[in-house]
Amino acid sequence: MIYYQWEPWAYSHQVWLEVAKKLNIEPNNVIWLFSFKDVFDKITKENWIGIIPIENSYAGSVHENFFHLSKYDTKIIWEYYLPINHCLVSTSKDIKTIKRAISHYQALMQCENYLNSKWIKPEVFWDTAWSAKYIKEQNNPELAAISSELAAKIYWLNILDKEINDQKWNTTRFFIIVPRNLNIPNISESKKCSIIFKVKDIPAVLYKCLWAFATRHINLTKIESIPTQENKFEYMFWIDLEKTKDFQQAIEELKFFAKQVKILWEY
Amino acid sequence: MIYYQWEPWAYSHQVWLEVAKKLNIEPNNVIWLFSFKDVFDKITKENWIGIIPIENSYAGSVHENFFHLSKYDTKIIWEYYLPINHCLVSTSKDIKTIKRAISHYQALMQCENYLNSKWIKPEVFWDTAWSAKYIKEQNNPELAAISSELAAKIYWLNILDKEINDQKWNTTRFFIIVPRNLNIPNISESKKCSIIFKVKDIPAVLYKCLWAFATRHINLTKIESIPTQENKFEYMFWIDLEKTKDFQQAIEELKFFAKQVKILWEY
Repeated sequence: MIYYQWEPWAYSHQVWLEVAKKLNIEPNNVIWLFSFKDVFDKITKENWIGIIPIENSYAGSVHENFFHLSKYDTKIIWEYYLPINHCLVSTSKDIKTIKRAISHYQALMQCENYLNSKWIKPEVFWDTAWSAKYIKEQNNPELAAISSELAAKIYWLNILDKEINDQKWNTTRFFIIVPRNLNIPNISESKKCSIIFKVKDIPAVLYKCLWAFATRHINLTKIESIPTQENKFEYMFWIDLEKTKDFQQAIEELKFFAKQVKILWEY
Repeated sequence: MIYYQWEPWAYSHQVWLEVAKKLNIEPNNVIWLFSFKDVFDKITKENWIGIIPIENSYAGSVHENFFHLSKYDTKIIWEYYLPINHCLVSTSKDIKTIKRAISHYQALMQCENYLNSKWIKPEVFWDTAWSAKYIKEQNNPELAAISSELAAKIYWLNILDKEINDQKWNTTRFFIIVPRNLNIPNISESKKCSIIFKVKDIPAVLYKCLWAFATRHINLTKIESIPTQENKFEYMFWIDLEKTKDFQQAIEELKFFAKQVKILWEY
């Protein structure tokens, strides 16, 4: 049983380590793939476990994975909220020698105030983990990278500063997914559920869809419309909710106004 | 009057050229800034025009800009949907010489099937426009970049293939923004409107908020919940809707259940 993501020692690698611990899998059983689509292809063909990012508190939702989740026959067995704590790492041991910092554009942007305050110039690199690797190879005391603590440890770099992101609450939400027919239990009990649906062509249709949940006191914790672009002006909706005993009834009522209702959690 | 974005000759540069044409501004009056926050800072301090991406059909919404729009006192004067058409560009004139293609990770991922079919190996670079520039400098017939047609023309590269993205309907939505007190008219009439609000702590509150629009036959074209993370479990909502004459009434009714309602279009 093997896990997939697109790049070694990136932030999502930390999620894998958590999953391996929970499922008692040898942490080396991991393969990195180029694209999210590859992850869905591989795990459904070969009955493996996949890890995909679904939303970041600052950058927003990863719509592409909504599309894959709506098309591939997978189920979610766990969700994991990973706090993104950027570190300033270098081969130098003294922050005063640092003049430039490389990292992924978004990581640099998220540490903009910090870098300004230290007079360190940001330089765009393609990835956080690779920038740590590059720093190690260069061994230049003027050069630092912004990466995770994990990447710094893997490449034996000095951590000059921790939690340097300007917004302290930056988190990424990951789903751990398997093919629906794979007999593997949820990693932990969850009261949450995610559903995807399209709406029928009825006036005020979203309002009518939400009626099914509102009258049953079912709390929604996320709602998002996504243009399907298969047909112009057709929308797909993503809803996260807190399950109650009336949940199945609510789904039946939802179906009066929605089509292609897909429940993404096994429970 | 000057426009800001974060990088020259990227896709958003095309949006600027459209805006300059509409407003009859010299297209060279443009400055690129590092971050979206810089754009908001600069335009509100110096009364300039800004262009920001707000959502991509495949990658999703740019939450960061939702936060900025809710905090800074700006108004939207235009929206622009830019079709993202990736091109394969090179100093070589013959696609058969190409063995590797560099570009931004997302662009490579969006052309994955195309590259596979041509036996071209993807290599991650930090940006689409910069990869075109790099290709020009290298002048290597085995090397291509994936970039916009505009970047290819700027760097005098051969366009070996057009519209190579696997999903043909990839579009990015941009907002053209100015400080709210700047006396500049909307670029074109729009029936659309975007609003941001937080909800009060009332059961089924979102359902009650939508009531104001449903009963007035006001169509919603986008809805999205965004965790504010200022307070745990507090959400901000983004709604796009089609304005009708009852619009102001609907907003008044919305305020029974919502707080900090902000209308982002001047009209």
